[in-house]
Amino acid sequence: MFVTPPSLVDQYCHGVLRTELGLGTFEAHLGRTPAPPAPGTTFFDTQTGFAVRRWCPPLLGLEPHCPPAGYLARRRELGVLEAGRRLLRGTGIAAYLVDTGLPGDLTRPRELAATGDAEAHEIVRLELLAEQVADTSGTAEDFLANLGEAMHAATRTAVAFTSVAGVRHGLALAPHPPGPGEVRGAAGRWLAGRRAGGRLSDPVLLRHLLWNAVSCGLPLQLHVSGDPERLTEFAAASAGLGTDLVLLHDHPYHRHAAHLAGVFPHVYADLGPALSHTGARAAAVLAEMLELAPFGKVLFSSGARGLPELHVVGARSFQEALGRVLGGWVAEGAWSKPDAERVAGMIGAGNARRVYRLA
Amino acid sequence: MFVTPPSLVDQYCHGVLRTELGLGTFEAHLGRTPAPPAPGTTFFDTQTGFAVRRWCPPLLGLEPHCPPAGYLARRRELGVLEAGRRLLRGTGIAAYLVDTGLPGDLTRPRELAATGDAEAHEIVRLELLAEQVADTSGTAEDFLANLGEAMHAATRTAVAFTSVAGVRHGLALAPHPPGPGEVRGAAGRWLAGRRAGGRLSDPVLLRHLLWNAVSCGLPLQLHVSGDPERLTEFAAASAGLGTDLVLLHDHPYHRHAAHLAGVFPHVYADLGPALSHTGARAAAVLAEMLELAPFGKVLFSSGARGLPELHVVGARSFQEALGRVLGGWVAEGAWSKPDAERVAGMIGAGNARRVYRLA
Amino acid sequence: MFVTPPSLVDQYCHGVLRTELGLGTFEAHLGRTPAPPAPGTTFFDTQTGFAVRRWCPPLLGLEPHCPPAGYLARRRELGVLEAGRRLLRGTGIAAYLVDTGLPGDLTRPRELAATGDAEAHEIVRLELLAEQVADTSGTAEDFLANLGEAMHAATRTAVAFTSVAGVRHGLALAPHPPGPGEVRGAAGRWLAGRRAGGRLSDPVLLRHLLWNAVSCGLPLQLHVSGDPERLTEFAAASAGLGTDLVLLHDHPYHRHAAHLAGVFPHVYADLGPALSHTGARAAAVLAEMLELAPFGKVLFSSGARGLPELHVVGARSFQEALGRVLGGWVAEGAWSKPDAERVAGMIGAGNARRVYRLA
Repeated sequence: MFVTPPSLVDQYCHGVLRTELGLGTFEAHLGRTPAPPAPGTTFFDTQTGFAVRRWCPPLLGLEPHCPPAGYLARRRELGVLEAGRRLLRGTGIAAYLVDTGLPGDLTRPRELAATGDAEAHEIVRLELLAEQVADTSGTAEDFLANLGEAMHAATRTAVAFTSVAGVRHGLALAPHPPGPGEVRGAAGRWLAGRRAGGRLSDPVLLRHLLWNAVSCGLPLQLHVSGDPERLTEFAAASAGLGTDLVLLHDHPYHRHAAHLAGVFPHVYADLGPALSHTGARAAAVLAEMLELAPFGKVLFSSGARGLPELHVVGARSFQEALGRVLGGWVAEGAWSKPDAERVAGMIGAGNARRVYRLA
Repeated sequence: MFVTPPSLVDQYCHGVLRTELGLGTFEAHLGRTPAPPAPGTTFFDTQTGFAVRRWCPPLLGLEPHCPPAGYLARRRELGVLEAGRRLLRGTGIAAYLVDTGLPGDLTRPRELAATGDAEAHEIVRLELLAEQVADTSGTAEDFLANLGEAMHAATRTAVAFTSVAGVRHGLALAPHPPGPGEVRGAAGRWLAGRRAGGRLSDPVLLRHLLWNAVSCGLPLQLHVSGDPERLTEFAAASAGLGTDLVLLHDHPYHRHAAHLAGVFPHVYADLGPALSHTGARAAAVLAEMLELAPFGKVLFSSGARGLPELHVVGARSFQEALGRVLGGWVAEGAWSKPDAERVAGMIGAGNARRVYRLA
Repeated sequence: MFVTPPSLVDQYCHGVLRTELGLGTFEAHLGRTPAPPAPGTTFFDTQTGFAVRRWCPPLLGLEPHCPPAGYLARRRELGVLEAGRRLLRGTGIAAYLVDTGLPGDLTRPRELAATGDAEAHEIVRLELLAEQVADTSGTAEDFLANLGEAMHAATRTAVAFTSVAGVRHGLALAPHPPGPGEVRGAAGRWLAGRRAGGRLSDPVLLRHLLWNAVSCGLPLQLHVSGDPERLTEFAAASAGLGTDLVLLHDHPYHRHAAHLAGVFPHVYADLGPALSHTGARAAAVLAEMLELAPFGKVLFSSGARGLPELHVVGARSFQEALGRVLGGWVAEGAWSKPDAERVAGMIGAGNARRVYRLA
């Protein structure tokens, strides 16, 4: 119906595991939380599980929808490196933006780029950066100065900041930047009570991190759990400062995220999990995102972590959905074909290249 | 496209009325609340009304979509018993799980089973059980001891507990079990202020009931009015205790219920009213439920009360929607045919037989 | 598939601009807020922008989807009056209900009627009425007496009241009418602190206005920003008083509005922005509205302001969506053709004529 974008920018993902996986460890990565499946059920019986079985077996020389055990046998036969190579190179992704802030033995951006024959860029996770700085800082003053330097240094190597806890534990309580005394007090208390490696969840420090990031100018990706409307006040307070906010939100709140992207010039909406987790429904969910969001404000991602199969599912679900949705609108006369091709290129890659200032 | 499940388990419904109905009394049962229709409008002009006129007339020998007056004349001609027999036997439901806690002259499970040529099992409504125990208990201590015994006895005859007021008036305030002293105090105050037949709405006693039910081990069905996310803390607190929670939720919150079913291993999502109330839109709503909910966590019900027509609408809307949605995914290559058949059987009956330990 | 309603009642819109527009000023009216588009993007790349380019060029003798610059050149060539005439007469709208409470050089109802060859009726915006009364009132007592008279007078010339701020700044805080002393106190404070032309945002006075409107008996249109469930208590408190409430709500809350229209006999749901802003998705959104709302409780509007193109988009999107949705249900046997024709007439015009007592 129209030309698929020749290459994708995956604006949010993680690396892949370097170890061979059995049926159980593979299945665990298909769930949306660390919790196990219910007794008598399996995570293979989800849209994600079915989508893996639809898109991945052909990349390893098998029939679509072959049974999980057969697929994993073939994966082991090829070896984790070769299987990863075939899968990532089958995605059509030309650039990966990689959140390196997850624990676990995951490939780093450089290795992901080599395996997938693509570019890769780093996204710095603010909480991890602050924890690493805290591990080597003595006083609250040291910590805050070192943190500022570390963030500034990150702007030279990374393409974006991301925060996982900031919205839920920080902005939901107060949208505005905390005062310097408040920040110093919170830093002192946190450092005093903390052992090396201790996690950051203090609401004042989280807000300090986010507002510091806003002042750095790199796009700031925010994991929004629950209704993105809780971000409205922060979005209003940070408008016009020159820093873009990218909402990494949860289905079923994708329409709310699209709404915010239509209301605030500096707010963008990610497509990732809403499409990756919904498999056969990805086209329907994509169409919902494209109701209120301006087409220049929507960004593709896979959101994948650990399994290269999830990069495949994210990319293929997106491409198939995009072709179906935009192609359908062209067929019924609602859109013109050149407009559809242009918007496909924007959502698949162009918007991300502009926002993250990629070459 | 694929084989319809040979028989359904209706995991939540009520009995049917034993009396002949006129046009007005019949219409009143098509509304979603006891309020009358707006002036100049009728409840026949709703998706439920149109669905009744689509599915039921043929079961009584009439054309689909015949006018309501003609349908009711034919219903009276056959008599309420024979009409009910033809309607219930036309549902394809093999087992009814019946909430017996509604007032009114409704058939009991045994009678529903005989009329519908099916199994029937009882669901015990916690608030009614507590009110009945209160009618025959003197002191708070008696009441609490008798309540515990009554709940324990119910686990031998019923397949599930259900609570209508517990979420809105109990768990929304506090998700954790109340302390023994708090419960005794609340019981004493409630008993002292109550006349025989008085309704239970005390938040402490409601939470006591729900946590007692959790400790009994029978699946606990929760009527969630409004956003099911208000249940998140209770779900987290009751995880891993071995008792399943089944969300009886309202459209338009069905996607949120599906989301919770994907996050908590012991949480299940009911399809009932979301499909029964939406008629021609049932396939679209079913597809939305199947985005985030693992396929082993979704349960069919009719939610019907009073009119056997509503059991028909629930069952036929579900079967038609299931065929359309899963068949469509098979046709476009997203799912395999054997997977679709297997999932249809799970949602229509298998999941319920496993969760409620039916033969 | 079935007969389109021969004429529409647009139950909520504004007048059109009298001045020639350039590309930038035209584009600004396609946004949903006064904020500019993000750098590197344009409001033409939205569903609204694409819908304007779909429906409007043919009314001015151009091809659908022609570029914006070409369209605006043709518009200037015809002149703002002739272009407006061709556009409004191409809508199929037979009656406009016009909210005259917006600032700016917009045509009044009489002029809109003449340009569009249609009826037009006035909707009185409560906040503006109160501000105008305040400009000419000395004391709080005067103000309240004059306000009551002005509202009473409006019932003789207008077909409805509307409130933009009342829900968010009034009813969200307290659903019940304020007491007389409370109102006098609030009026005194507001008048004392106000210069001529000052806006009304006092929550007590807003609630006073809304409850006064309820007692006047004209239908009351409420702009609901955010979740309409915040209106539940006001709807419960105002039920049975004989005044209808019409929810002017935002996508993505259209399903919640439809739900309330199904629960309260005096609550109606508007289709306007949910369809006008979603372009190629209008059919999908309309179908969602028709899940829970009784068909006698749904009202068409364009919600257009400023550009006659937006009246066109509202009307054409609605008619196309209605034909597609209802026609599809007829085709699959879910609805009968006479029912579909009847419901199309109700939603397009009949419901509004009944609610607003139009000839």
